[in-house]
Amino acid sequence: MSIVVQKFGGTSVGDVERIRRVARIIADTYDQGHSIAVVISAMGHTTDELVNLANDLVQNPAGREFDALLVTGEMVSASLMALTLNSMGYKAVSLNGQQAGFHTEDLHNRARILEIDTGRVQYHLNNKEIVIITGFQGINSKGDYTTLGRGGSDTSAVALAGALGAERCDIFTDVKGVYSADPRVVPEAVKLDDITYIEMLELSRVGAQVLHPRAVETARHANVQIRVRSTFYTDDLGTLVMEQHSLEPNMRAVSGIASDENQARIAITGVPDQPGVAAKIFGTLANRNISVDMIIQSLNKQEINDVAFTVSSNDLNDALEALEKVKSEIQADAILHDTSVAKVSIVGIGMIDRPGIAADMFSALSEGQINIKMIATSEIKISCLIEKAQAKQAVQTIHNVFFPEACGATLVTDQKLGY
Amino acid sequence: MSIVVQKFGGTSVGDVERIRRVARIIADTYDQGHSIAVVISAMGHTTDELVNLANDLVQNPAGREFDALLVTGEMVSASLMALTLNSMGYKAVSLNGQQAGFHTEDLHNRARILEIDTGRVQYHLNNKEIVIITGFQGINSKGDYTTLGRGGSDTSAVALAGALGAERCDIFTDVKGVYSADPRVVPEAVKLDDITYIEMLELSRVGAQVLHPRAVETARHANVQIRVRSTFYTDDLGTLVMEQHSLEPNMRAVSGIASDENQARIAITGVPDQPGVAAKIFGTLANRNISVDMIIQSLNKQEINDVAFTVSSNDLNDALEALEKVKSEIQADAILHDTSVAKVSIVGIGMIDRPGIAADMFSALSEGQINIKMIATSEIKISCLIEKAQAKQAVQTIHNVFFPEACGATLVTDQKLGY
Repeated sequence: MSIVVQKFGGTSVGDVERIRRVARIIADTYDQGHSIAVVISAMGHTTDELVNLANDLVQNPAGREFDALLVTGEMVSASLMALTLNSMGYKAVSLNGQQAGFHTEDLHNRARILEIDTGRVQYHLNNKEIVIITGFQGINSKGDYTTLGRGGSDTSAVALAGALGAERCDIFTDVKGVYSADPRVVPEAVKLDDITYIEMLELSRVGAQVLHPRAVETARHANVQIRVRSTFYTDDLGTLVMEQHSLEPNMRAVSGIASDENQARIAITGVPDQPGVAAKIFGTLANRNISVDMIIQSLNKQEINDVAFTVSSNDLNDALEALEKVKSEIQADAILHDTSVAKVSIVGIGMIDRPGIAADMFSALSEGQINIKMIATSEIKISCLIEKAQAKQAVQTIHNVFFPEACGATLVTDQKLGY
Repeated sequence: MSIVVQKFGGTSVGDVERIRRVARIIADTYDQGHSIAVVISAMGHTTDELVNLANDLVQNPAGREFDALLVTGEMVSASLMALTLNSMGYKAVSLNGQQAGFHTEDLHNRARILEIDTGRVQYHLNNKEIVIITGFQGINSKGDYTTLGRGGSDTSAVALAGALGAERCDIFTDVKGVYSADPRVVPEAVKLDDITYIEMLELSRVGAQVLHPRAVETARHANVQIRVRSTFYTDDLGTLVMEQHSLEPNMRAVSGIASDENQARIAITGVPDQPGVAAKIFGTLANRNISVDMIIQSLNKQEINDVAFTVSSNDLNDALEALEKVKSEIQADAILHDTSVAKVSIVGIGMIDRPGIAADMFSALSEGQINIKMIATSEIKISCLIEKAQAKQAVQTIHNVFFPEACGATLVTDQKLGY
């Protein structure tokens, strides 16, 4: 019998009514003759409440005990879901990260999954039971609970689907799928029927929050087909994330447009043009686990460089502190920063063979009187750093260019959609 | 190094402030040079909240999934306590029922502890770490979490103290110890310095809620000394529960007086005096797991009996339903019941050789114009069933007789005491 993995996020199981709705979705899929393994997140704001409790008691809670605290959130939702399915007459069993065989690194708070021992899950599936598994958690070599960090539950689901050889992995969320742009910003945004792993990866890295890049990478690695779909509109098949577009000839140049307003620009001016300076700057940041994007090095005057790059604004203070320490070593004039910026990106595997795409994007921004501060490109992505205040206008303007058929359309988008 | 087990109930860890206070108590005991294993309950009303959630979703939640839900309450408090101790500079580690090696029966919701594999607890103690263990829970042969049911956390602590060969087991609660009567009813009630297991067992069975009878039985079996003491008045050494009173010659006749208003009386009238009738009645109730107390069989007229007994008022409807089914079989005239009753009991190992004690109790009730409906006695306990409305007066009156030195004293009792 084919195995289907279904993942439900915290919003989908946020209260008693929603738990009942999700139980009905699971039961319906079971009734269609599938073996079902469900991966579930903690109810709504449970994790936040646990974090707040810990913050009230200690500064910067972390490590083994913080994980031991956080894993209870998913245990609560998983057992409630199993109780609900049992009361509906379905055989269901909840398994926590240890029971479900999620072996992770020893590291706490952001462990990676090393291996899933699917023995017990498979046993219950063979027994025709619906298996409800706590997302976001595993167990390390000491038998201690670990958590997977950001994007954890999506990653749990995709990794499990890979380990079980599941037919597909349905990621149920509060939006109908992956859109060509955030429908809250671009009302005529188009829901995509399918998207490749690599596009989804780039889109989620540049701001689309519908699926965590880590889960996409895991899916790509294990060749698991993901269907991103809505808990609240189950008739809609959502968006399929997979290796290749189904219809190559009809492939669009651009699949999606995203913006990320959580960016800060740092410029280091007057750096002597000597070997090893860039290594010093970016090595210092890497040691603090700060990711850097959109690096530009420009020759200011003879043998003097300006180096500019962007970081997540959460990392800004940390980055500035680290750079201040090496400032004299690299003989820089000044370290400047700017938080009033946003990164607008277009992503599409179809742009590889179409050289005019970048120019189309720049023209669109120019016609909208939007100044470009920095540009970074990859094979399937073009990002421009612009004024934060113009980000939404930029996304709309670019969308008009690459999705002209949607312009003027009267697509009614659901205000609840949280793309 | 001597091992001390400390148990803290839900009220003692009810909020962030109280968790800090308890962490200080634990740290102080550690600083005195003890090895400390702490058993902890869920915070305040956490368990009730989880039960309510389950009740909102399904009728009569029970079994494996209900246990999987409930065990999270203690996991939260245990990890928060370990985080707090760590932040104070103490090495502390939380262990759940599985990690702490609490192996139980397969039964859910009220499993008994079969064995404690103390290997991991001992490892951390040897490592000079404070070990925080989730009370009320264990793991069965399938690797599933089980809960121990009522009195579970006290029992966890006492059983662990026995398995570790601990010097003592301190049960921290919201009262200062075991009193001669409920201080809310009898303001001049005396806190006892010590009490024997067998007296404590009887007292807790007849209404004193300070310690669950199951924990007392476990302590008696494993010969673990329990100290019942207050989380809020740590200077007070509380009450020692142990095999024998320390000072035999000064032994009181009566150690404590308790009342239980949660009683119902059932009378079955006109039962033919034939062999097997009592077995039928009480076998029927036992099959439904209903405990019966204070059985009296009286000859009504020739060869016709009346049988009366008491049950917990929670079990009344269940008992009446069961008895109605066997009514014709036992040829009874009628099945009557009365819920306006209370059981008042005196307990004391010293009454064994003092035949006048029962008479003193009956006189006290008589002088207070309190009618006795039923009497039941054991070697160290005398219980009288009376009108519920007179229960508090009865306890006060009896206390005056057996603790005359306390009469008229101006003991200030804390209104918070929850005996």
